[in-house]
Amino acid sequence: MIGFGTVGQGIASVLMRKDLGLTITAIADSRSGLMRDDGVDLAGVLERKRGGFVVGDVGISPMDVVKRGEYDLLVEVSPTNIQTAEPAATFIREAISRGKHVVSSNKGPIALHLKELRRAALSHGVQLRYEATVCGAIPIMHVLEEGLRGNSVKSLHGVLNGTSNFILTRMAEEGLTYDQALAEAREMGVAEADPTYDVKGIDAAIKLVILSNTIWETDLRLEDVVVTGIDQITPDAIRLSEDEDATIRLIAEAIPERGICRVTPRLIPRNHPLVVNGTLNAITLTTDLAGALTFVGKGAGSIETASAVIGDILHIKERYARGA
Amino acid sequence: MIGFGTVGQGIASVLMRKDLGLTITAIADSRSGLMRDDGVDLAGVLERKRGGFVVGDVGISPMDVVKRGEYDLLVEVSPTNIQTAEPAATFIREAISRGKHVVSSNKGPIALHLKELRRAALSHGVQLRYEATVCGAIPIMHVLEEGLRGNSVKSLHGVLNGTSNFILTRMAEEGLTYDQALAEAREMGVAEADPTYDVKGIDAAIKLVILSNTIWETDLRLEDVVVTGIDQITPDAIRLSEDEDATIRLIAEAIPERGICRVTPRLIPRNHPLVVNGTLNAITLTTDLAGALTFVGKGAGSIETASAVIGDILHIKERYARGA
Repeated sequence: MIGFGTVGQGIASVLMRKDLGLTITAIADSRSGLMRDDGVDLAGVLERKRGGFVVGDVGISPMDVVKRGEYDLLVEVSPTNIQTAEPAATFIREAISRGKHVVSSNKGPIALHLKELRRAALSHGVQLRYEATVCGAIPIMHVLEEGLRGNSVKSLHGVLNGTSNFILTRMAEEGLTYDQALAEAREMGVAEADPTYDVKGIDAAIKLVILSNTIWETDLRLEDVVVTGIDQITPDAIRLSEDEDATIRLIAEAIPERGICRVTPRLIPRNHPLVVNGTLNAITLTTDLAGALTFVGKGAGSIETASAVIGDILHIKERYARGA
Repeated sequence: MIGFGTVGQGIASVLMRKDLGLTITAIADSRSGLMRDDGVDLAGVLERKRGGFVVGDVGISPMDVVKRGEYDLLVEVSPTNIQTAEPAATFIREAISRGKHVVSSNKGPIALHLKELRRAALSHGVQLRYEATVCGAIPIMHVLEEGLRGNSVKSLHGVLNGTSNFILTRMAEEGLTYDQALAEAREMGVAEADPTYDVKGIDAAIKLVILSNTIWETDLRLEDVVVTGIDQITPDAIRLSEDEDATIRLIAEAIPERGICRVTPRLIPRNHPLVVNGTLNAITLTTDLAGALTFVGKGAGSIETASAVIGDILHIKERYARGA
């Protein structure tokens, strides 16, 4: 496992309380690394991390672990770098070239290099999965692969950024200004110190790129998405929307047939399934046979994101593990 | 394929317009049957059915097809008989004993005999799938099997009956009485001439039994579900709920830890994800890791239900077909 932040710690705590037949043989973060072929002591690692100590040996880097570690599957949960996707992209390429499966929660490599990484995985006979990169706990990738066989997806609409949705919800519920709602989001840990990616719609656009490229096997880039954020929304605009029994939500939408791929605040009837509150995420797929299907769930959170990563690991374990 | 009503015709029309690599070698309904090892002429069969003619040879019964037909997989889409599950249960048992996979949209056999049929399928090395029995187009069974690996489901709450939901929606939107809304539902083809099963909560209870027995591998029976319908709901009750920014929905819920298994009208905040309008279905699963996940989609319809049946067929084809 590369990366030991919120997601990595979530995975470790789940594995400590549930026996899922998985062994973590190495962990590395940006400060240190640890390799134990018979299984890392997760309780000890979590305790050191939470105490502010290094988790392993400062002489062992993430690249050492990726290159020399004994493992069947790389769990790549290091922080997203959306400019270069590095160093995560290199870790993933390296693991694939060693014939290792990869599960990632890292939006950088998947948004920037999905086609290349998929091709590499295919040619090395390994699996690459990334359920956790979009919509947190919602198993949207599994639904796309498994649940909609026989269907063609015509379009997708989603509330893909929990921070923006929280701010819009609070503005509507309490008549707050954008700045007041953002301040509240920061206090509650829902918004980061620099909320630019979230409130400017960039995070939602990244997820839209990942979903679109997955569904339609396109090679869409972040620059191809038309993006408007929520930071110009006024309390007046929200009050006016409420007069029509509607509200404003930051909607990511892709409709290939009409050449539409954008993230923009939209007026939506309050009783529409995409109108979810707080930090929830929601996604609607419009299909040719099953009609419109909407999925709602937590878009972030340590254990929720860990759930998506673990779902991917178990999927690979069941179907592709040696001897399975 | 046994049964050629709404679902069967939906399947036939999808197979006519999409090449999914499937061949229907026999069709039978209560009036006649037809066997063509190289593939039934679906256009002709649909035309005869829609013209009110028999689809095949009146000398060929469904049981003839099940027992003597050449097929890999039985598609059982005949009408539900919730008292005895017959004759569908016998067709399914017979097909399984012949070593054939089974996909069914028929709630009778699955609600009454799931454990027995599963065991039979297991011992004959075949698959039994029934996505279409609950929540129409929502791929809830696939989500349970594939999307929530590593999770334990703690409870489920659902709006599982589209007719009741339509009536409650119209009562709230237009201030109609129950009888007025029911009359409208009948006119629109949303309610049957005898709406008892829908409005008394029995249809929802049947689906709750199927979902519960699938998730928790229990042996729950319809009699174990506490059921209250919507036919006693007054416009006053709905008006009162609206004063609290809530509404009334017929909720099916199962919480095994608390011994709860019931279908009953409940007051729910209007912004709750389960508050869907019209004939939509919705289901919330509460899990230990992924938190609460809600799925919304069309609960009925010819093509939507066909989508669920076809998804099951393709699932089996990809993984278990001879030579796959």
